[in-house]
Amino acid sequence: MIRVCVDAMGGDEPPEVVLEGIAKALKDHADVEVLVAGDASVVEPFCAKHERAKALVTTEAIGMDEHPADAIRAKRDSSIVRGCEAIRAGEADAFFSAGNTGAVLAAATLKVGRIHGVTRPALMTPIPGLDGHRTVTLDLGANADCKPEMLVQFAQMGSAFAHTVMGVEHPRCALMSNGTEATKGSAQVLEFHALLEEHNGEGYDFAGNCEGVDLLLGNYDVIVADGFTGNVALKTLEGTAKYMVKRIKAAVAKSPRAALGALLLKPALGEVARDLSGDETGGAVLLGCKAPVFIGHGATSANAVYHGILAAKRAVEGGLVERIANSCAAQEQE
Amino acid sequence: MIRVCVDAMGGDEPPEVVLEGIAKALKDHADVEVLVAGDASVVEPFCAKHERAKALVTTEAIGMDEHPADAIRAKRDSSIVRGCEAIRAGEADAFFSAGNTGAVLAAATLKVGRIHGVTRPALMTPIPGLDGHRTVTLDLGANADCKPEMLVQFAQMGSAFAHTVMGVEHPRCALMSNGTEATKGSAQVLEFHALLEEHNGEGYDFAGNCEGVDLLLGNYDVIVADGFTGNVALKTLEGTAKYMVKRIKAAVAKSPRAALGALLLKPALGEVARDLSGDETGGAVLLGCKAPVFIGHGATSANAVYHGILAAKRAVEGGLVERIANSCAAQEQE
Repeated sequence: MIRVCVDAMGGDEPPEVVLEGIAKALKDHADVEVLVAGDASVVEPFCAKHERAKALVTTEAIGMDEHPADAIRAKRDSSIVRGCEAIRAGEADAFFSAGNTGAVLAAATLKVGRIHGVTRPALMTPIPGLDGHRTVTLDLGANADCKPEMLVQFAQMGSAFAHTVMGVEHPRCALMSNGTEATKGSAQVLEFHALLEEHNGEGYDFAGNCEGVDLLLGNYDVIVADGFTGNVALKTLEGTAKYMVKRIKAAVAKSPRAALGALLLKPALGEVARDLSGDETGGAVLLGCKAPVFIGHGATSANAVYHGILAAKRAVEGGLVERIANSCAAQEQE
Repeated sequence: MIRVCVDAMGGDEPPEVVLEGIAKALKDHADVEVLVAGDASVVEPFCAKHERAKALVTTEAIGMDEHPADAIRAKRDSSIVRGCEAIRAGEADAFFSAGNTGAVLAAATLKVGRIHGVTRPALMTPIPGLDGHRTVTLDLGANADCKPEMLVQFAQMGSAFAHTVMGVEHPRCALMSNGTEATKGSAQVLEFHALLEEHNGEGYDFAGNCEGVDLLLGNYDVIVADGFTGNVALKTLEGTAKYMVKRIKAAVAKSPRAALGALLLKPALGEVARDLSGDETGGAVLLGCKAPVFIGHGATSANAVYHGILAAKRAVEGGLVERIANSCAAQEQE
């Protein structure tokens, strides 16, 4: 039985959306058990009706705009803090929340704890590309400043995820830079490159530098960057996708011909938009903690929660944490 | 009379494409004179037929893949090197090339020379957003590593361009970061923020941090970043736009319904693609040299060359260089 703790209070949507996703996961997967964290009025009636759902009653909820560190300190009985504590206490194997990303990140690091040997956990998302390919990309903002050894761990953690959860046999890992040549990069990125080259083969297969275009082209399975660069790239990607949809909508408003075209293209456009929404992958994943922690988009959907729970299940079944621990411990021993 | 030197040998396209753009600019604008740099066989017949075209005969051309610094050293009689020398000699007021970006950058810095007070020239492009808004974005890769005072100059140079060439009365300038709050950023970006704040009002109006999504949203007139971050963001933006077009094409190949939709939407999609191609803006601009230097996309078009020449004309007419010199000299005197 795989036990996933789900934060019912997280995200911009009402708890019912999260509960709907949980119900679907429980129905489709008989080996999944869910610990549902949230207000008694939300979680108790739900758990009474679902056999493999267990209530974790909490009295507080952290808002999407609250300061992460302050919030987890002040709201000790929040679904996010209590959920992470339940993981540490061994009451669940993985955590899913569509709540305040910073708060989940802080609570997970503090309460679930880092894997021995991991310097800093990193935020990752598998970016969807052509032909269903997904590029495991990290760090997306957990660490604005990174030391070179952290990039090596990002490569190891990302490769472990690509292998364990996504079934990629030999993931190819690239470093985000401003050119593909090894000589390209800021002074810091050149240091990242040198250390990634030095440890190549220790839990990852380093393919050299890549560029912003590669995030969606599917040439690599894992792309690593410091959290500042990764965050700028991800937000640029999301912004461009949204912009193009807006531009098409603006054209549609001006021309009946374009409106008909958009209607006929809707399934295709919807598919791209859905892919880039992160719903199918359960959003972002915090790698490097003692249990897999999945963070859905604030504007989550029942489908995103469903897929988030399934991704958590695959991570637990595939031994993601053990795999990361082995890679990072090996590096540490040198 | 505005005199623009145009590199006829630059880019992936044959020189005829460049010549077509020059011809159109000469025809539409009686106050434009073009110094056409390139092989005798290319430029002489063209200049014989066009009254305000003057030949600058050169014998070498720098390839798109050549190492910039090596190429400009080895090929002293190339259209790029000779074009920049013509600017220094006062034979033309601005330079346009769709050639090797690095080579143009190196030749311009070396031969045209930096404006007094400018630490390092920066590569800029006005990114097209909704409702025709364009966001002057720099540095796009000329300087992978930047000191905080360089960011202040980027803000000054970008604001001067937005005012002079694009007619924005009071340009609002933002700093690219991983969050809009002033506390967000890498250690280095926090330093950028502090100095931008300190010099606020000295040739630019600082509006604080912005994120990747803002490149296309049109909330700011100028966005500054170090060249590494700017390059990653621009390539991510271009990659995402291309990816979406590919996805739509893939959907079209699978469904006649989608194919019809794409056909009807073609004008709208074409408009977005054209906008993001940079054709209308003449590509990138190197700011900080003693004359405006415009660098077209390698895959240029006659239309891109035409608009590049017009942008160069506006830059000269508006006194872009003087404006930048005034901002940067004022900062230096403090």
